[in-house]
Amino acid sequence: MDAIGRIERCLSAALATAGGPAGPPLLAGAMAHAVFPRGARVRPRLALAVSSACGDDDMAAADGAAAAIELLHCASLVHDDLPCFDDADMRRGRPSVHRAYGEPLAVLAGDALIVLAFQTLAAGARRSPLRLPMLLLILAHATGAPRGIAAGQAWESEPQVDLGEYQRAKTGALFAAATMAGATAAGFDPEPWRALGEKLGEAYQVADDLGDVLSDAAEHGKPTGRDSALCRPNAVLSLGVAGAMHHLESLAAAAADSIPACPGAAALQALTLSEARRLLPRDLSRRAA
Amino acid sequence: MDAIGRIERCLSAALATAGGPAGPPLLAGAMAHAVFPRGARVRPRLALAVSSACGDDDMAAADGAAAAIELLHCASLVHDDLPCFDDADMRRGRPSVHRAYGEPLAVLAGDALIVLAFQTLAAGARRSPLRLPMLLLILAHATGAPRGIAAGQAWESEPQVDLGEYQRAKTGALFAAATMAGATAAGFDPEPWRALGEKLGEAYQVADDLGDVLSDAAEHGKPTGRDSALCRPNAVLSLGVAGAMHHLESLAAAAADSIPACPGAAALQALTLSEARRLLPRDLSRRAA
Repeated sequence: MDAIGRIERCLSAALATAGGPAGPPLLAGAMAHAVFPRGARVRPRLALAVSSACGDDDMAAADGAAAAIELLHCASLVHDDLPCFDDADMRRGRPSVHRAYGEPLAVLAGDALIVLAFQTLAAGARRSPLRLPMLLLILAHATGAPRGIAAGQAWESEPQVDLGEYQRAKTGALFAAATMAGATAAGFDPEPWRALGEKLGEAYQVADDLGDVLSDAAEHGKPTGRDSALCRPNAVLSLGVAGAMHHLESLAAAAADSIPACPGAAALQALTLSEARRLLPRDLSRRAA
Repeated sequence: MDAIGRIERCLSAALATAGGPAGPPLLAGAMAHAVFPRGARVRPRLALAVSSACGDDDMAAADGAAAAIELLHCASLVHDDLPCFDDADMRRGRPSVHRAYGEPLAVLAGDALIVLAFQTLAAGARRSPLRLPMLLLILAHATGAPRGIAAGQAWESEPQVDLGEYQRAKTGALFAAATMAGATAAGFDPEPWRALGEKLGEAYQVADDLGDVLSDAAEHGKPTGRDSALCRPNAVLSLGVAGAMHHLESLAAAAADSIPACPGAAALQALTLSEARRLLPRDLSRRAA
């Protein structure tokens, strides 16, 4: 089964558990709305690419880690879209969860998705329980305080923002968790894999900045031009389009160079460079092709 | 060190981790505001009472489980108080988190406390890693969907409410998690400990119902009479005050009777009965004394 097939199967199984017959149906609906239909699944695919490069000796553990990372990502999107943050009406071309289900169920769906992520991680690691503590800590660090996604979003409420910490926490942390958890799930030391995730997270942020400035809303799937409206940092505003594209290419090269010795290192390097090109907004990737 | 000392030390250490220097200070402040100064710490004390009765062979694992349960409880209070739910201005006699820090930081503090709970659980179980998977699943079931706290709260958004599921999920689940996690942390099978937590959770709900109807706001620490205003189920409204007190006593007796064989069973039975009396609102416990 290919990576997307493994990820979707694991996510479907997790959501089926959460939507058991004893529970409130609308909450189950709101959780599923947040996870399906799928987006690009960039982070879980990255986790599985690393676990495969490391030999993937426990595929269930890797699948659980990949799905958990996507669930945490989806939870953060649901809460980021709430009226007290971005007040976004649309997400992935459909109504956001709070528009479709109301604000109370959006708050609770986000909470329950965070919990489901850790549950999915534990269920996946059943055959390798001694890998669970490290997997759990990697995901927790990437999600909570002081340097995870929640902390990244919280910088927007501070009078003085540390821009480096803001972007590392808001985007980079979960990419680093993806590579580190992928390695851990396959029995490898996670720390050498941090740089790959961090560089790719930074590249993804630059691609998103390009999308924010350049793409039309239909392609991007959400309102654009929001960064300048919200005074958020944006690589295109500081480097220009050509400068941002050059920066993205440098980051992709640095990411590929950082890949530690492992059975599938060469294939992963090639994949890293091709995926970085896919990150570009469609019209730019045509221009760059 | 007594139980409260162990709990507060573990919670302080967890919050110190989350409030590291690289993170956004207001988020750390909001998280600490949600956890300190302490309330009764009913659930973590219950977890430690069970782990002690089971011999407490890994006190750090028990402390981590107890603190994790309290963090999950505090997270649920922060989110329950939000404007889209109870819109509560006060909690434990002080401004609620969203009143003190604003709604965005209240959402994020709740999220980060959920994550910190799982992180604290893993950190505590460092010497007994093979107990972590079961501990994690117990806490996840008690917190997420379909039958944990988030599901309990979500029943309030359903057109048709299953009242039994509503109360079991909203209150009972975390009490059952406390007894089951306490046993697991000490190396015991959790399942025989479920009934103790469920009965005590139900007793606690009845005591809370008595408080909601009878106490003044100053003693209860939050606005009272809200259940009837919000059309929530309430044992006093259905059984009357005397009937509710009798029901609470029956539940306490059933809880004490359910305690499985363990080194400290007799002491735990006595503690269960005395703690059940402490649950009563102050004027009722004087009347019952």
